[in-house]
Amino acid sequence: MAMLKLSRYSAYAGNPIEEEDKLAERLELSGKKIIRLNRGDPAVYFPTPRYMIDAYLSALNSGKTGYSFHAGIRELRVAIAQRHRRLYNLDPNPDSIIVTQGVSEAILFASSLFIDPGDSALIFRPYYPLYVDALRLSGGNPIFVDCKEEDEFRINPDALRKGLGQHKAEKIKYMIFANPSNPTGAVMRRSELKEIVEVAKDNEVFIISDEIYDEVVFNGEKFTSISEVSKGVPYAVFGGASKGFDSTGFRIGYAMIPEQDRQSIAIREKFADYAKMRLSSNTPAQYAFADAMNKTGVHKEEITKMVEKIAARVNFACDLVNKSKYLYATKPKGAFYLLAKLDMKRLDLKDDQEVAAGLLVEEGIQITRGSGFGAPGHIRIVALAPEEILEQSIRKIDKFLVKHSK
Amino acid sequence: MAMLKLSRYSAYAGNPIEEEDKLAERLELSGKKIIRLNRGDPAVYFPTPRYMIDAYLSALNSGKTGYSFHAGIRELRVAIAQRHRRLYNLDPNPDSIIVTQGVSEAILFASSLFIDPGDSALIFRPYYPLYVDALRLSGGNPIFVDCKEEDEFRINPDALRKGLGQHKAEKIKYMIFANPSNPTGAVMRRSELKEIVEVAKDNEVFIISDEIYDEVVFNGEKFTSISEVSKGVPYAVFGGASKGFDSTGFRIGYAMIPEQDRQSIAIREKFADYAKMRLSSNTPAQYAFADAMNKTGVHKEEITKMVEKIAARVNFACDLVNKSKYLYATKPKGAFYLLAKLDMKRLDLKDDQEVAAGLLVEEGIQITRGSGFGAPGHIRIVALAPEEILEQSIRKIDKFLVKHSK
Repeated sequence: MAMLKLSRYSAYAGNPIEEEDKLAERLELSGKKIIRLNRGDPAVYFPTPRYMIDAYLSALNSGKTGYSFHAGIRELRVAIAQRHRRLYNLDPNPDSIIVTQGVSEAILFASSLFIDPGDSALIFRPYYPLYVDALRLSGGNPIFVDCKEEDEFRINPDALRKGLGQHKAEKIKYMIFANPSNPTGAVMRRSELKEIVEVAKDNEVFIISDEIYDEVVFNGEKFTSISEVSKGVPYAVFGGASKGFDSTGFRIGYAMIPEQDRQSIAIREKFADYAKMRLSSNTPAQYAFADAMNKTGVHKEEITKMVEKIAARVNFACDLVNKSKYLYATKPKGAFYLLAKLDMKRLDLKDDQEVAAGLLVEEGIQITRGSGFGAPGHIRIVALAPEEILEQSIRKIDKFLVKHSK
Repeated sequence: MAMLKLSRYSAYAGNPIEEEDKLAERLELSGKKIIRLNRGDPAVYFPTPRYMIDAYLSALNSGKTGYSFHAGIRELRVAIAQRHRRLYNLDPNPDSIIVTQGVSEAILFASSLFIDPGDSALIFRPYYPLYVDALRLSGGNPIFVDCKEEDEFRINPDALRKGLGQHKAEKIKYMIFANPSNPTGAVMRRSELKEIVEVAKDNEVFIISDEIYDEVVFNGEKFTSISEVSKGVPYAVFGGASKGFDSTGFRIGYAMIPEQDRQSIAIREKFADYAKMRLSSNTPAQYAFADAMNKTGVHKEEITKMVEKIAARVNFACDLVNKSKYLYATKPKGAFYLLAKLDMKRLDLKDDQEVAAGLLVEEGIQITRGSGFGAPGHIRIVALAPEEILEQSIRKIDKFLVKHSK
């Protein structure tokens, strides 16, 4: 056959976090030891809590193996609603929640739901890669608003206003950001979130707040959910089991669109239509997540212990990174990533992609190039491994950079 | 907010199979008993085999709870490859297989992967709804080729050739069909499949054969996989755990693209890129499916028993349907659906949608309108329930039609 069949938009499918996976596997098969600091997977280092496993086993043993309701089992939607009441003083209707196959699916649904070719969405840079890839897959154009190091990578509402002002003519359907942020670990302040809500309202832009890391906050920071400050402005919260409930492999997330205005109702009904297309999420895993959210006491214990350890590891890794002459990282307040700036001018490597590839081949360290998150000249390091592995890895990274210095 | 934000294409998101779910739930809450014959879910009536559950439990108990490789765990891809060797004498490379969250995800990936707005795909009518909805969501146009009752709803290669001839100018990216068919239960003959492969080759159209029902074949029919007759012509097989392995709620499917030509390689790499975007499928469920495929002896026993029962129920329901003066169904050779033709001219109801809604409200029977499958004037009945439930339901359907006859 002469002609290749791939669509133009399909060029945007992919994921920088996993783009070195094949090379890593090949190196491993050839006998090289690879340390993977590319995937934000707490379940690799912290066993998924026993109470979640038990609920999962019990669902399987009691025959919960068929399709479930497209928007998720009621028990889970009620548990999610109750958790939002407990933590954020919001009382959402369980019907305003659509269970998804991880937050990834919610992001993919959202872009298709909102975007016709030529439409735009506001993306805060650095960003989680799928925000941009999903948007472009639907033919959309990102309007980037930069989050600066001097603001500790939080969204600056003035910069947002200014950015919007330059794009008056465009059809901006939504804004999307992660709070806490992947890859920067920034945690938005309440006052800033309030301002963002005002901007969204004035410009009629729907807000999507990806709060998958809402329980992974440390270094004295307090998390505010968009739902605490939205005051009737339409928005969605994305969340799920993967991070705070340490069960990435279960693939259970959700989208919550609680407001009662016409637009919010239309959006959540359309979300449900998307969910119908793939029939259901994994059924027994939904019971596991529902049960875990209802076990508030034991969850509080588990998450507190885990976040303490994560904070210690992130801080340890950050201090070590900052001892390198060729790296600099702002201390994160949440999630478990370090976005480390490379002193590219003093290196004989072309860009962060060469750094990532070189690190993998020469030192057996897999990290992710910052350009994948809209932060060229950076690398993203997952700081979940125990201190001794982080220490060994960051020393290797430093050694590699010294070797490639001018 | 004044302006609704939904995209134009999002109008195509949805699923006729579940569109009455909300009404059914409301009726149930008001005390009405609802019999659901709309979802093709064997796990409702046949317990998922114990050996699958055991493998699932064991994966959970041994800590397989984190993300897995985006294209699926190697054990599963090897097991899928071995199964194809065993059943279809094909020896695919495990790397030609991408594990997906059900066949639904594979269908959604495919449409985005192939289709730019304005492109076309060949759809055989009656069709599984997602083939058309996914295509349209990407801005694509279906070219319908009708499968006729006189051919027992199998694809007629001459009709296919003729259909293609009328669309010479269009960019036809792929053809997709289910074999065995949902909703008609047609099973393609080997000779016909060979001809379809010839047509695909002559017209440079990629073939997608959805073989999720490949082990659910009866009434003396023998199933042929596209992989047995493709002879180097590029194609994909979609399959999974849901139907033959009776575990719909696990959400594990796969796409296999085994040929070694440039196009097939590009397509499967792009498939993997799509899989990377959502990180991984449910991890413990993959171990369950891998293990089940390796347990060939016990699986053979279980599937034989299940298919015997399904055949009996389908035949029983079909005979009963054909006793109604207002219904007619061709006897299926596979899957577990009846596509029953309504004698609309003799009914005082406008269309099959009115029949579906009326049946639900007046008789508490939830079936799916045929127009959702491109077969207006029909209804689709899932024939998985035990005979007594099928009998009771079909009697109610007949009673309803008699009541609404002219």
